[in-house]
Amino acid sequence: MIHAKIPPSIEDVRAAAGRLKGKATVTPLLPSDVLGSLTGTNAFVKAECLQRTGSFKFRGAYNSLAVLPEDKRKLGVVACSSGNHGQGIAEAARLFGCKATIIMPADAPVLKAARVSRSGAEIIRYDRATEDRDEMAREFSKRTGATLIHPYEYREVIAGQGTCGMEIVDQFEQLDAIPDRIVICCGGGGLSAGIALAVHERFPETKICTVEPEGFDEYRRSLEAGKILANKASTGSICDALMAPQPGEMSFAINKTHIADSLVVSDEEAMKAIRFAYEELKLVIEPSGAVSIAALLQQKTAWRGETVACVLSGGNIDPELYAKVLADNP
Amino acid sequence: MIHAKIPPSIEDVRAAAGRLKGKATVTPLLPSDVLGSLTGTNAFVKAECLQRTGSFKFRGAYNSLAVLPEDKRKLGVVACSSGNHGQGIAEAARLFGCKATIIMPADAPVLKAARVSRSGAEIIRYDRATEDRDEMAREFSKRTGATLIHPYEYREVIAGQGTCGMEIVDQFEQLDAIPDRIVICCGGGGLSAGIALAVHERFPETKICTVEPEGFDEYRRSLEAGKILANKASTGSICDALMAPQPGEMSFAINKTHIADSLVVSDEEAMKAIRFAYEELKLVIEPSGAVSIAALLQQKTAWRGETVACVLSGGNIDPELYAKVLADNP
Repeated sequence: MIHAKIPPSIEDVRAAAGRLKGKATVTPLLPSDVLGSLTGTNAFVKAECLQRTGSFKFRGAYNSLAVLPEDKRKLGVVACSSGNHGQGIAEAARLFGCKATIIMPADAPVLKAARVSRSGAEIIRYDRATEDRDEMAREFSKRTGATLIHPYEYREVIAGQGTCGMEIVDQFEQLDAIPDRIVICCGGGGLSAGIALAVHERFPETKICTVEPEGFDEYRRSLEAGKILANKASTGSICDALMAPQPGEMSFAINKTHIADSLVVSDEEAMKAIRFAYEELKLVIEPSGAVSIAALLQQKTAWRGETVACVLSGGNIDPELYAKVLADNP
Repeated sequence: MIHAKIPPSIEDVRAAAGRLKGKATVTPLLPSDVLGSLTGTNAFVKAECLQRTGSFKFRGAYNSLAVLPEDKRKLGVVACSSGNHGQGIAEAARLFGCKATIIMPADAPVLKAARVSRSGAEIIRYDRATEDRDEMAREFSKRTGATLIHPYEYREVIAGQGTCGMEIVDQFEQLDAIPDRIVICCGGGGLSAGIALAVHERFPETKICTVEPEGFDEYRRSLEAGKILANKASTGSICDALMAPQPGEMSFAINKTHIADSLVVSDEEAMKAIRFAYEELKLVIEPSGAVSIAALLQQKTAWRGETVACVLSGGNIDPELYAKVLADNP
């Protein structure tokens, strides 16, 4: 029985963890003494860039396909994505032996598109500024019978992302520590919602802090206003995975009761954080994955004394952009 | 009591693990389905590039300083290194509050030298082709009383590197699996010797396979000849950490009874492996850290069906070279 439109509970996150066992990578929670000494914190990174397909999105994608009845799955799945959700869906579909169609913006990173194709999925392109991807996906779903799996407005997707939070909890418990703060990038809000559910179940005092790129701070503004507000722009940040048009209703309903703080970083700060991860962490992270480190560095020593975990959501960055980031930050 | 010149036993590796607890990072053993499907293996990488200071060398360095009596440590330590052993010694010395002097080749990567300086160590430069770094270090040690810590010909260094092998064993046991083969880069031979000691204690059937860059295959040739042979060249590979002049006596004594296979890869293969790690693993690895993946890819499907772990020894690569590698491998 599927209730894709009912928000997930912690039980759904636990069930997702069972389905993902042996399929998703348990990504490491790594201490960073350099990040810690720069900010006066006990700093960790949750290296979700090391996840299968290079981002956390595989978790929610696999979980969503796992709960589909066999006869529905046979008709295929369709998803809208700048790349990471698409890669997750494409790879999960390959593992389940079903067809996937991914609706991608024309300006999506080349690497992400190439990896979607490699998993055997079909790509349909759209223009971020003029076309409505959700409408295109609904039409496609209606015409073909494919199940539309929304990148964040979907119960099993949020539950799947929550398994990242369960791992964070387990990993801190193994260290006999409780995080004071978890810093997470925020587009549609699925990752922060899932992590918040899992973390607050065990560590109710931990502050969940979301981070958005400048110009795409719809979550911060919506949380302040107490209602869902849309972004004004639809293009213009290097954080290609964080340009959701507005918070999802389901993720917003969860996030608004869990988020303590909402920060905004510039593209330049994100690029500096990519370079930091290259030099000090030896992790390849994409702009959207870098905003959590950017936010911690932006705070300078404001979080002094805290145990902080930055979630590095993904690492799918085109080599041309990566080389530019390394060259621009001497 | 220090017996720096007596080869370590598994007990020394265990003691090192106790000293390193909470100081060194337990680096993750990560599955790679992409590497596995390209080679027909059940492939894992031991991401030692995520170690403190960006390479495994911190393990042996910290362990060596930890066993020094306080009055000896007060006189400082000296080490010869193209960078990673130097960084390890410098950072360990900072943690113990003692002085470190690092004798580095003039052509050592800029990033490595900068990080040695950051830890507060002093750097003395030498010319790989014309000067004898070991002689310089012995002279410095005699003059100042500083303890000379050799990068691989030193019991506590090899024991410290062995803790990487203990983690590999623990991590495979957690997966309820036994590796058929562990692939390790080889310069002086300290890392492979330490890992071999730890792995063969628990998994006697596991094949230990070393990898060297073309032109610097002194280990392969020495193992074949049954005696220590020197390299002909002293410069000329991008694998800056694998150009030891010849196998160490202590590491050779251990390695010759443990190594099953000895492979050689070209600089081009190492560069392709760096690019592979960028794209598929999201890990930044240096040329020397990449040769294990290069060797696995070189074998194509010769190891089909095996469970293989590639040790990625470090990630300290200058951004200029890294950008070049990304650009050259379309």
